[in-house]
Amino acid sequence: MSIALTPLEDKLIIKVSEPETQTASGLYIPDNAKEKPQQGEVLAVGPGRRDDKGERIPVDVEVGQHVLFSKYGGTEVNYKGEDYLIVAARDILAILN
Amino acid sequence: MSIALTPLEDKLIIKVSEPETQTASGLYIPDNAKEKPQQGEVLAVGPGRRDDKGERIPVDVEVGQHVLFSKYGGTEVNYKGEDYLIVAARDILAILN
Amino acid sequence: MSIALTPLEDKLIIKVSEPETQTASGLYIPDNAKEKPQQGEVLAVGPGRRDDKGERIPVDVEVGQHVLFSKYGGTEVNYKGEDYLIVAARDILAILN
Amino acid sequence: MSIALTPLEDKLIIKVSEPETQTASGLYIPDNAKEKPQQGEVLAVGPGRRDDKGERIPVDVEVGQHVLFSKYGGTEVNYKGEDYLIVAARDILAILN
Amino acid sequence: MSIALTPLEDKLIIKVSEPETQTASGLYIPDNAKEKPQQGEVLAVGPGRRDDKGERIPVDVEVGQHVLFSKYGGTEVNYKGEDYLIVAARDILAILN
Amino acid sequence: MSIALTPLEDKLIIKVSEPETQTASGLYIPDNAKEKPQQGEVLAVGPGRRDDKGERIPVDVEVGQHVLFSKYGGTEVNYKGEDYLIVAARDILAILN
Amino acid sequence: MSIALTPLEDKLIIKVSEPETQTASGLYIPDNAKEKPQQGEVLAVGPGRRDDKGERIPVDVEVGQHVLFSKYGGTEVNYKGEDYLIVAARDILAILN
Repeated sequence: MSIALTPLEDKLIIKVSEPETQTASGLYIPDNAKEKPQQGEVLAVGPGRRDDKGERIPVDVEVGQHVLFSKYGGTEVNYKGEDYLIVAARDILAILN
Repeated sequence: MSIALTPLEDKLIIKVSEPETQTASGLYIPDNAKEKPQQGEVLAVGPGRRDDKGERIPVDVEVGQHVLFSKYGGTEVNYKGEDYLIVAARDILAILN
Repeated sequence: MSIALTPLEDKLIIKVSEPETQTASGLYIPDNAKEKPQQGEVLAVGPGRRDDKGERIPVDVEVGQHVLFSKYGGTEVNYKGEDYLIVAARDILAILN
Repeated sequence: MSIALTPLEDKLIIKVSEPETQTASGLYIPDNAKEKPQQGEVLAVGPGRRDDKGERIPVDVEVGQHVLFSKYGGTEVNYKGEDYLIVAARDILAILN
Repeated sequence: MSIALTPLEDKLIIKVSEPETQTASGLYIPDNAKEKPQQGEVLAVGPGRRDDKGERIPVDVEVGQHVLFSKYGGTEVNYKGEDYLIVAARDILAILN
Repeated sequence: MSIALTPLEDKLIIKVSEPETQTASGLYIPDNAKEKPQQGEVLAVGPGRRDDKGERIPVDVEVGQHVLFSKYGGTEVNYKGEDYLIVAARDILAILN
Repeated sequence: MSIALTPLEDKLIIKVSEPETQTASGLYIPDNAKEKPQQGEVLAVGPGRRDDKGERIPVDVEVGQHVLFSKYGGTEVNYKGEDYLIVAARDILAILN
């Protein structure tokens, strides 16, 4: 799966998984949770933010990984009928193995 | 396309695309999105902000690229009948290929 | 006990202890406390945040330790019927010996 | 044109242009713009703020340039019947060529 | 006096003194004070926060000292029937000699 | 003119000028200005704040200069019947020549 | 005059002067002042905060000096019938000579 969007800084392009997929992987987010995380596949990874010396800070997430992320802070876009989310790497909570 | 405005720091001059162009490229922003990004062409790029040592931090966007950006934080100007937006590079979400 | 979640940065995956366990260990959180801490076992530890030079800052908590933490700031997930909390290491108050 | 005010840090003394001048240069600020920028001539430039090592950070604007700036953050003064604005260099959006 | 809690970063475990003890030592907090400090004995001291280079910043308080601290920011716990407070070293106002 | 107050850090002791003096120098602050600056003579200058390395950052204002400053942030004191203002150097807008 | 309180970081123990003393020294705080400073004698001075490299930043105030300070941010304590204020050095406005 590829997409014609190149993220900048430490941003990621994520294909958000459907609620059914979440149950299949055994992960379930309770309805009464204060901050509900979402799950999805990473399609593109930005080159990383620059530190105080102008060098790139590597991003700890790779294309193809399935991640758990906080939905707040992300920006929704629709490209050729598919929904994507642009999320900063620092909003990723964990990688799903 | 050129413009007689030289942006400072990490600011960009952007010619905002019409909604029709957005549909043609396959990118569509849902009406119910919390933060609606916009699309446009980069006409001018500032020299970059200076880091703590006074050196320029390079800007990751080039003149001629089409970018997706958060419309908040930008400043609208009209020059010879055309609308432009002055946006900081850190408000650019992704480059459209 | 293991879990298929790999935390990023300085995040921890914690199996929250039941209230009964808390009494057994002699630790009791008064009902009228302003900020009620919780107790749990650390299942996974992130690689640590990167400092201004891009190097990892080690996390002071190890897998298997029982910790006291502030429940605010954590994110609840349910994996195969078990409740977990993803908490940043800086929200850990103390290690229970 | 000179003025008996010496700005400090990265502040600029600006002679704000009349609305007529703005139309002549082809630049027009729409009435419905969220943040209306203003146009003016730079009369004096401060020596620049000092960085963490006590050295001056050069100001990217020169006396005599016409600039576009955000009017918020500036301070209005009237000297011998003329209106001036004291604006920080970081509130300058672009230089008009 | 010892306790089975190991504080992290620059946190302290404090046994809060009774109001009677406070009068005995000659220290009295007026009822109408805006921010009422509390008094207690330090039972355990964390290893210190890490600075920007990853090195520990030493904590200026030692086990056994009696300290005056701001009660806000602390977290109350009860261990085997005794009340303790977990307080950050930066909330310590003074050491009582 | 001298005063028995030694300012600390980057603070200045300023003798605020009367409104009449302001007209005489040709400087006039419009009544409808959003943030009205004030004018006065610098009587004492602090040694400067210390930077991250513990060295003093020099203050760009000298005793005897007449300055334009933002009145907010200053603290009014009355010494032997005269009104003074203690203002941080960073609230000075410009030096009047 | 001595006191059995050792302040930490950049904190000071101050014996607040009575209003009569303030008139005697010629310093008078107007009733309508926005932020009313207070006057007092410094009884104890902390060792100073640590900078980013873990070294102490010296405190610019000495025991025995009379200082003018902002009363906000201080903490009131009463020791053997006397009122004291614990104030951070950065809340000291000026030294009274």
